[in-house]
Amino acid sequence: MKKLIMCAGLLLLPMLSNAQEQRSDDYVEYRQAAFNVMGWHFKKMGAMIQGRIPYDAVEFKRRAVAVSMLSALPSEGFLPETQKTELPTRLKPEMWYQKERFDKYMQDLIQATAELASQAGMEDKDDLRPAFGKAARQCKTCHDRFRESN
Amino acid sequence: MKKLIMCAGLLLLPMLSNAQEQRSDDYVEYRQAAFNVMGWHFKKMGAMIQGRIPYDAVEFKRRAVAVSMLSALPSEGFLPETQKTELPTRLKPEMWYQKERFDKYMQDLIQATAELASQAGMEDKDDLRPAFGKAARQCKTCHDRFRESN
Repeated sequence: MKKLIMCAGLLLLPMLSNAQEQRSDDYVEYRQAAFNVMGWHFKKMGAMIQGRIPYDAVEFKRRAVAVSMLSALPSEGFLPETQKTELPTRLKPEMWYQKERFDKYMQDLIQATAELASQAGMEDKDDLRPAFGKAARQCKTCHDRFRESN
Repeated sequence: MKKLIMCAGLLLLPMLSNAQEQRSDDYVEYRQAAFNVMGWHFKKMGAMIQGRIPYDAVEFKRRAVAVSMLSALPSEGFLPETQKTELPTRLKPEMWYQKERFDKYMQDLIQATAELASQAGMEDKDDLRPAFGKAARQCKTCHDRFRESN
């Protein structure tokens, strides 16, 4: 009877491992989706700052508040198990050996986007340049170190 | 000279159309990403409500607030031009003939998730069942009508 239970346990292993893999890919897709949505709103703000689309204080504020909230979301997608994913990812593997630095970058991003959201709403977009620039540099700092450039 | 300018204009056309297509696909990817992130947090709340993972009032509140904000984001991805996308999408084409109803569903979702977020934080998760159920039904109503089931 004990042997039968052990056999049943072994038979279950591939199923569990398969489920685990699926779950791991969900984490990758989730964090990529969170960055996609954050980037979408960030780029629209950038286009306003750079004058490529008309500046609208209310729209800018709405996007800045969204980005501020969104910045806290991707972190939970960086589960160590996702290192084994076969999904395309631009994450450099060395991030996993510098996780503390990565987490610090994410915290700095949360801080910078919160500042931008609190300042957003100003009539003159030029007054928002410093806060926008700080948040943009925060994105770039992390991308330069932990994201493949291609 | 005029002819040369016209020729140059014609040469530019495919590039512009390509850029337009790219942009249209960006909209599709954006709205799918927004739904992915919203679904991620909604499912975690569902798992707590159903007892599949331990209930944590603070975590539930954090996710409910995120979903409430996220619910306002996908709408801008439903650009009419995206009907021509070749990306895989589960959106039923008839949505485009019932856009008012779709917009109403999205507004109802914003309302239902705002109610859930305002109630979240309660010690007893059973007190959250009605608000969670209402938000979940709002998702389902729209999926049943406008999302392919496969």
